[in-house]
Amino acid sequence: MNRTRDVADLGEFEFECGRSVPLEVAYETYGEYDGNNAVLACHALTGSQHVTGPRRGSDDENGTSGQASAWWSDVVGPGKAIDTREYFVVCANVPGSCYGTTGPASIDPETGDPYGTDFPPVTVGDWTRAQARLLDLLGVGPLRAVVGGSVGGMNVLEWAKRFPERVDRIVPVATAARLDPQMLGIDAVARRAITTDPNWNGGEYYGTDEEGDPRPEPNEGLAVARQLGHLSYLSKDSMDRKFGRRSAGRAGTAEAFAPDDPAGEFFPYREVESYLDYQAEKFVERFDANSYLYLTRAMDDYDLAEGYDSDADALAGFSGEALVVSFTGDWHFTVEQSERLTAAFETAGVDTAHHVVESDHGHDAFLVEPEEVGPPIRDFLSAGLDGKAVSDAEEREFAPVHASLFGD
Amino acid sequence: MNRTRDVADLGEFEFECGRSVPLEVAYETYGEYDGNNAVLACHALTGSQHVTGPRRGSDDENGTSGQASAWWSDVVGPGKAIDTREYFVVCANVPGSCYGTTGPASIDPETGDPYGTDFPPVTVGDWTRAQARLLDLLGVGPLRAVVGGSVGGMNVLEWAKRFPERVDRIVPVATAARLDPQMLGIDAVARRAITTDPNWNGGEYYGTDEEGDPRPEPNEGLAVARQLGHLSYLSKDSMDRKFGRRSAGRAGTAEAFAPDDPAGEFFPYREVESYLDYQAEKFVERFDANSYLYLTRAMDDYDLAEGYDSDADALAGFSGEALVVSFTGDWHFTVEQSERLTAAFETAGVDTAHHVVESDHGHDAFLVEPEEVGPPIRDFLSAGLDGKAVSDAEEREFAPVHASLFGD
Repeated sequence: MNRTRDVADLGEFEFECGRSVPLEVAYETYGEYDGNNAVLACHALTGSQHVTGPRRGSDDENGTSGQASAWWSDVVGPGKAIDTREYFVVCANVPGSCYGTTGPASIDPETGDPYGTDFPPVTVGDWTRAQARLLDLLGVGPLRAVVGGSVGGMNVLEWAKRFPERVDRIVPVATAARLDPQMLGIDAVARRAITTDPNWNGGEYYGTDEEGDPRPEPNEGLAVARQLGHLSYLSKDSMDRKFGRRSAGRAGTAEAFAPDDPAGEFFPYREVESYLDYQAEKFVERFDANSYLYLTRAMDDYDLAEGYDSDADALAGFSGEALVVSFTGDWHFTVEQSERLTAAFETAGVDTAHHVVESDHGHDAFLVEPEEVGPPIRDFLSAGLDGKAVSDAEEREFAPVHASLFGD
Repeated sequence: MNRTRDVADLGEFEFECGRSVPLEVAYETYGEYDGNNAVLACHALTGSQHVTGPRRGSDDENGTSGQASAWWSDVVGPGKAIDTREYFVVCANVPGSCYGTTGPASIDPETGDPYGTDFPPVTVGDWTRAQARLLDLLGVGPLRAVVGGSVGGMNVLEWAKRFPERVDRIVPVATAARLDPQMLGIDAVARRAITTDPNWNGGEYYGTDEEGDPRPEPNEGLAVARQLGHLSYLSKDSMDRKFGRRSAGRAGTAEAFAPDDPAGEFFPYREVESYLDYQAEKFVERFDANSYLYLTRAMDDYDLAEGYDSDADALAGFSGEALVVSFTGDWHFTVEQSERLTAAFETAGVDTAHHVVESDHGHDAFLVEPEEVGPPIRDFLSAGLDGKAVSDAEEREFAPVHASLFGD
């Protein structure tokens, strides 16, 4: 597979908040551009531009893990649903993130120090405009498709709203026109866990202190934030199956990572806790706490209808086709939210299918069920809504969408 | 209403962990005992012995709020469902809590200092045994009923398991035979928020430091823990209705309570966040962080089947009647869990009804929907399963139990 990895200098970039900073965008491309085969992939909250590639164990060749490592290798690649022998796939790390694109951890050229919380607030609209400018720089014309999941799916919607003439087909996966208040609450508590960690220190925890000692990082707060997020990506069913109430035993616990209360010794350290601790421990190694604040705020703030009278109005300029994909066990972005999104597309006169995947994997399903997600995307990219594996919720039978969330 | 408030000295009390400490139990009684009219009420995680009484605004005459204030005034009292003109109602603060019963914040007579994390781990079984000993001291014989919600409902189940001959009717409300792994995960993250707050300091944050200055309390960690719990008590629907995505405005925020990141100024401070912040701010004033650790561990650890082959075996000694009450919008303790609990009672040969309340109030419904909860309890206490307002899920139609969780 022909891959490029690079960082594009977009020059001075004005954010929606009105402030400007010099913006560099780290991106990867896969495959060969033939002038008519570009697909933009939009990563999720803690994802990166590294969509696909070889993996070694859980860490890939970059030594990264989680969504920083090839996060959609089972969907994007040679012979995969988004076949890089056929399509030219582009993915860019979003502004505010920490995988090479300018964000809070980057050096402010005016001060020579990291921006920290002086970095401008970012929005999904900023991500989208930065991607468009990157594509201009790369000489990429109209996009065959824009595809992405979770907040990456909001990024997809923003493309249809903001640059409708530049994209033919869009695939918003496991997403919504806006977060619901439950998820706004979870994100607010997650941010609170970070900002109340004394090591967060108003966002100044980079580098060394006056005495040249490395500053402590707000890893405890970031770990709690991540664990909260993680809980919202799983479903009751997937947790039942994965962990039950089993004890993990005390060996190999993350005790050194988080202090334990002595009373805890009397009670089992359960697999669910061990898993959350392990994942959080890996996460804080790869992700920046300020980026977590910035990107969750962008997600919380996103509202497809903003600047318009309705979601449908916001989508009215889009004349391509849309494939909305949702998952029955997802309570972060629910099937109902995708139903409403589909209705908005239809009201806007956009040809749309809502493909509902029965899955008890929760929100994570869009990453961990490639065999369900791949075929409809593959067929939609090549044949639009006539694609063989594309099904529409209105046209087929499926079990009550939330039965799997709570049953045994 | 005739009320007594007192603290009973239970003497040296051996906990299930094998350790013993002198135990005092704070309790209240309402009404007159006639030898055959005692009802034990079991409070929830952060509740107190103060079941009912006058309220002034959100604070009651004790100056307490939340569940420390009369938490079931609409269900218990003169003329209420559990009528204190008819029944003698007893409620005791559980060991490990912080409303007068011995717990981590109490003074260890051996050291003269608060126990902190040297307090013995507590279990729901310990709570139950302490209540039984209190009733012995009070001269209260067989109980007409034991009633309680949430982890208080586990406390109710433990009565049927441990002292089946001492109780005639039981009403476990919004509860389960054990927590599911999703809730175990939420509790683990909540505890982590507390123990990673540097002010938690291994549980030693009471009183003053060596220089006589008051020690800082782990309020930030406890606030995050409480907010997490709070999120699990509400439903998507109730949050949609209560908060939507509305902005609360910046005035009157809890900014002084939790540091904000400057980027936050660009984005709205939403009602959902304002509510969670306000509630957490009140909560940390009334609750002890170590107690939160101890009581959530007791809840997580609870397993009705422990020591038996199954839930049904554990209940086999109970020859009274059971009314299981659950709520369709509750994802902390689901209707399905109550269905399984009901099936266990039936397998054990216990006459049981499962009364399902259609509500979108989430877990909080057992507190905030007295008009739904009161009538079946009233009629069950007086007439058992023949009670007029007692309905059974198997015998009536109700909408798909989770429709309300996710819809609009």
